Amino acid sequence: MNFKISKRIFLNALQLVARAVSSNSPIPSLSGIKLDIENDRIILTGSDSDISIKKELINDEDLKLDVIQTGSMVIDSRYLLEIVKRIDSDIVNFELIDGLLIRISGNEAEYQINGMRSSDYPVIDFKKPVNEFNIDAYALLKVINQTSYATSEKESRPVLCGVNFKCESNVVECVATDSYRLARKYFNIENELKFNVTIPKKSLNEIAHSIEKDSVINVAIDDKKAQFLIDNTIIQTRLIDGIYPETSRLIPTVFKNELVCDSRDILNAIDRASLMRSEGVYFVRLTASKNGIMISSKSQDVGSYSGNLNVESWSGDDLDITFSGKYVQDAIRTLESSNVCIRFAGDMKPFIITSLDDKSVLQLVLPVRTYN
Amino acid sequence: MNFKISKRIFLNALQLVARAVSSNSPIPSLSGIKLDIENDRIILTGSDSDISIKKELINDEDLKLDVIQTGSMVIDSRYLLEIVKRIDSDIVNFELIDGLLIRISGNEAEYQINGMRSSDYPVIDFKKPVNEFNIDAYALLKVINQTSYATSEKESRPVLCGVNFKCESNVVECVATDSYRLARKYFNIENELKFNVTIPKKSLNEIAHSIEKDSVINVAIDDKKAQFLIDNTIIQTRLIDGIYPETSRLIPTVFKNELVCDSRDILNAIDRASLMRSEGVYFVRLTASKNGIMISSKSQDVGSYSGNLNVESWSGDDLDITFSGKYVQDAIRTLESSNVCIRFAGDMKPFIITSLDDKSVLQLVLPVRTYN
Repeated sequence: MNFKISKRIFLNALQLVARAVSSNSPIPSLSGIKLDIENDRIILTGSDSDISIKKELINDEDLKLDVIQTGSMVIDSRYLLEIVKRIDSDIVNFELIDGLLIRISGNEAEYQINGMRSSDYPVIDFKKPVNEFNIDAYALLKVINQTSYATSEKESRPVLCGVNFKCESNVVECVATDSYRLARKYFNIENELKFNVTIPKKSLNEIAHSIEKDSVINVAIDDKKAQFLIDNTIIQTRLIDGIYPETSRLIPTVFKNELVCDSRDILNAIDRASLMRSEGVYFVRLTASKNGIMISSKSQDVGSYSGNLNVESWSGDDLDITFSGKYVQDAIRTLESSNVCIRFAGDMKPFIITSLDDKSVLQLVLPVRTYN
Repeated sequence: MNFKISKRIFLNALQLVARAVSSNSPIPSLSGIKLDIENDRIILTGSDSDISIKKELINDEDLKLDVIQTGSMVIDSRYLLEIVKRIDSDIVNFELIDGLLIRISGNEAEYQINGMRSSDYPVIDFKKPVNEFNIDAYALLKVINQTSYATSEKESRPVLCGVNFKCESNVVECVATDSYRLARKYFNIENELKFNVTIPKKSLNEIAHSIEKDSVINVAIDDKKAQFLIDNTIIQTRLIDGIYPETSRLIPTVFKNELVCDSRDILNAIDRASLMRSEGVYFVRLTASKNGIMISSKSQDVGSYSGNLNVESWSGDDLDITFSGKYVQDAIRTLESSNVCIRFAGDMKPFIITSLDDKSVLQLVLPVRTYN
């Protein structure tokens, strides 16, 4: 293995592929990035066995790839990144000099580190699954942002740690819930497909972080894995086993009250109330009466808060409901809308948060029992 | 107690005074900020008993202080800051409504929290010490930055956890050392004074953080405390007991080699070498021979690095010396100079780091024994 390559482009590719690498993998070679050097291209692979990223750099006048000898090698991801970052020239040289010892050099500086045999690296099957569709990168980003926050953090029900993607025609329904709140998002695809898979939250967040510009992403899904093709990068994730619970019956359809207000007003009101918290949790009470809509909170340790909430419209009778302030803030923020519409089905029933602008997304929060 | 005040100015003052407050003080009232409301002013006090800050806000058209009832009260620092930050109007209202219960309110929002009796707050003597001099704020900032980094982190020799300020005429000598490195800075004062005190590093860093603009700072010192008067703010610190060691004999005066180079070149060279570290520590080897000046490093876990160092001038014979890369980087950075001059007294002797522009400051680093 002996090649030269543009530092800038190679470093960008390393940073992308390194996202999949976990530093504490039980398989030593998975702490590294696999480099496959061919005559006209270099293929980088990183994986933590849940998520795998493969990036192909094909030679052009920017990449300035100059292959003196082809080969294949695994190099510790952390050191490889830090070394390439510190190389003091536009071109980095890689040369296998003795056994597994690699020389990485630039202008004035030279590193020598030990690599690992690529034959020790697990074989990763990047074959494309059959159900494929295209989606705009920013649309996918929105799908992920509007759902993944509502997944469960608890490992006890693994299937709730992911977002369920279900398609029976040309509409994909994405649902996430931790059983205290729920997020549901629809998006259309051009072709008709049938799948029902749950993608780990961690993988979706890595995919979201890899989206740098608005392009078309090709998504391919079967019952084993999901693959996202972004430019020359394949991001592939395992799925979460298990049947995702039927959630549609949880979503109320008959409402007693409807509140419409400016998103900032309610976010600020909850933020003011959030000071009354214990152990990081803040419960916020919303009361509607002929005196107006009030947001209040109290904490034995600290004291109490109360303030008016300015609303654009309110319909229905009096209401007295308490909820996790953080859950409602999270839900409103993901809507990315200037207004918010909250519909209540009763003091102890789940309530629905939507925006007036976008009917494709719905957020649901369960109230908490109050001790007033 | 009942008053109104400008939110912006009051919040700024609270943030400043809160710097002295420690949230885990054994004295409960010290977790609070003491407010003394007089007819034309409000006095804020915060302290962790090592460092105390007192700020006077005197009424003017910006402060908009409107005192309905004078009084004195201690309020938990964290909650007070967070509440005032969240008040949604330009003016904040404070009113003692029942016992120790205080109402803090703005436009639409109202908080009620319990305060503490000001009679439970320790009496802090802010009387001015006798030895006083003036110094420009930015000059004091430089004194602190160029010395405090070299203080010891170990509590075993408390006196080394501070910077020693010694004056016998109109020159103040500031010295800090952790016994592996040393920083010495001189500055002139207008009057002749005699003192020899050691100020805790933590206090100096708080003073440095409180300097927002270049003004004149009045410093007053006796054998019990040091006081810094910045605008209407008094920052007062206890001193560290014990006799500061005589350090001048540690500083070599005869040298065998002198290296002058661009600060960035040597900082970058050490940064490149710093990858070869174990447990966060990186030792760097500098070798001078007829082949030039080389910086190198190695680590059993990682590998090795070597690179040329571009120098502006080098004098003396061959040299082979190893040192803590971090210590030399710290020393060079505090010089804030484009060039650096390093003088060596031999392979195993302390070496001196200075800049060509500023003779008032000197940094010393001890080499480490090599295992080559």
